[in-house]
Amino acid sequence: MFEGPIQRLVDELSRLPGIGRKSAQRLAFHILNAETVDAKRLAQAIIDVKDQMRLCQRCFNVTSAEECVICRDVRRDPTIVCVVERAQDIPVLESTHEFRGRYHVLGAALSPIDGIGPGQLRLAELERRIDLEGITELICATNPTIEGDATASYIAREFKPRGVRVTRLASGLPVGGDLDYADAVTLGRALSGRSDL
Amino acid sequence: MFEGPIQRLVDELSRLPGIGRKSAQRLAFHILNAETVDAKRLAQAIIDVKDQMRLCQRCFNVTSAEECVICRDVRRDPTIVCVVERAQDIPVLESTHEFRGRYHVLGAALSPIDGIGPGQLRLAELERRIDLEGITELICATNPTIEGDATASYIAREFKPRGVRVTRLASGLPVGGDLDYADAVTLGRALSGRSDL
Repeated sequence: MFEGPIQRLVDELSRLPGIGRKSAQRLAFHILNAETVDAKRLAQAIIDVKDQMRLCQRCFNVTSAEECVICRDVRRDPTIVCVVERAQDIPVLESTHEFRGRYHVLGAALSPIDGIGPGQLRLAELERRIDLEGITELICATNPTIEGDATASYIAREFKPRGVRVTRLASGLPVGGDLDYADAVTLGRALSGRSDL
Repeated sequence: MFEGPIQRLVDELSRLPGIGRKSAQRLAFHILNAETVDAKRLAQAIIDVKDQMRLCQRCFNVTSAEECVICRDVRRDPTIVCVVERAQDIPVLESTHEFRGRYHVLGAALSPIDGIGPGQLRLAELERRIDLEGITELICATNPTIEGDATASYIAREFKPRGVRVTRLASGLPVGGDLDYADAVTLGRALSGRSDL
């Protein structure tokens, strides 16, 4: 459709998740019309992420150092670990300001249909941490999906016999939501997880 | 929220039009997890667009040469010129395979509220082309908006006295659309522009 360089940029942008052909065109022309310094800063940010970011040696969060900012923070409680599927789940948990422990990134959730079994998750690393760091509680913050629930159950089965408390984030109605629009499964969970007033 | 490089990439991505904070995070983590060669190709495509693309000297389409592929194509009729607001409107017109003339990119549409008057559009350049290239028809393919209509009317007022035929793309119902969902203005245009069967 377009001449060389702009078509290549459209092609590259439309490989990104959630960016269709039309969005890619709009973005490409935005970049074309943007200030050169802004476009080059974006290009540099992409290169820097690949060059500088790696995984935290302890929890597998993304970091530019040996260990991530959370693991380096001595004020955090090392005995409570929140287990998440992916590193990008950490900031949203952090934004609650409710959790002062550390994290452990599994890398995925159990999903036999996609060929992801316990061996593909970072469970051996978690086991090692339980031994080394005196972890007393694992909070399973995997997604509230079939795969996330299965992963949480697996973790409970594996690590409860070692005397570790294994908990799961509550499922229920989203705050500010409308009962009318709640699906049956969520509402069922909200009922079974009801609390006394 | 995130450490240095990944946060910078999220920030840069969320400056792009239509990319919110959440999409920027998703894209940044996609890039982080992508193959290095793929990420660098995207970065290079951004740099190349800024380094290699410029405007066609004749019609102001984007090009990597002196003149764009359409202006260079000797099989195209130089006497019919389709006037568009922006270069990104050209590919969609080309995709119809109905038009075999050349283009002229105005750069914007008349919009007094945004301070865009006739002096901000490439109308002097269009006037010069009419004299030099023996243009007999201008097809106004500006957007079917108040601004696009005003621009088309202005072009008609300016260039019809020079003996140039000035036409406008038809407004009406989109093919495959539903009469039920048509807005009153579009339906009004479809009525006044009705054709004999």
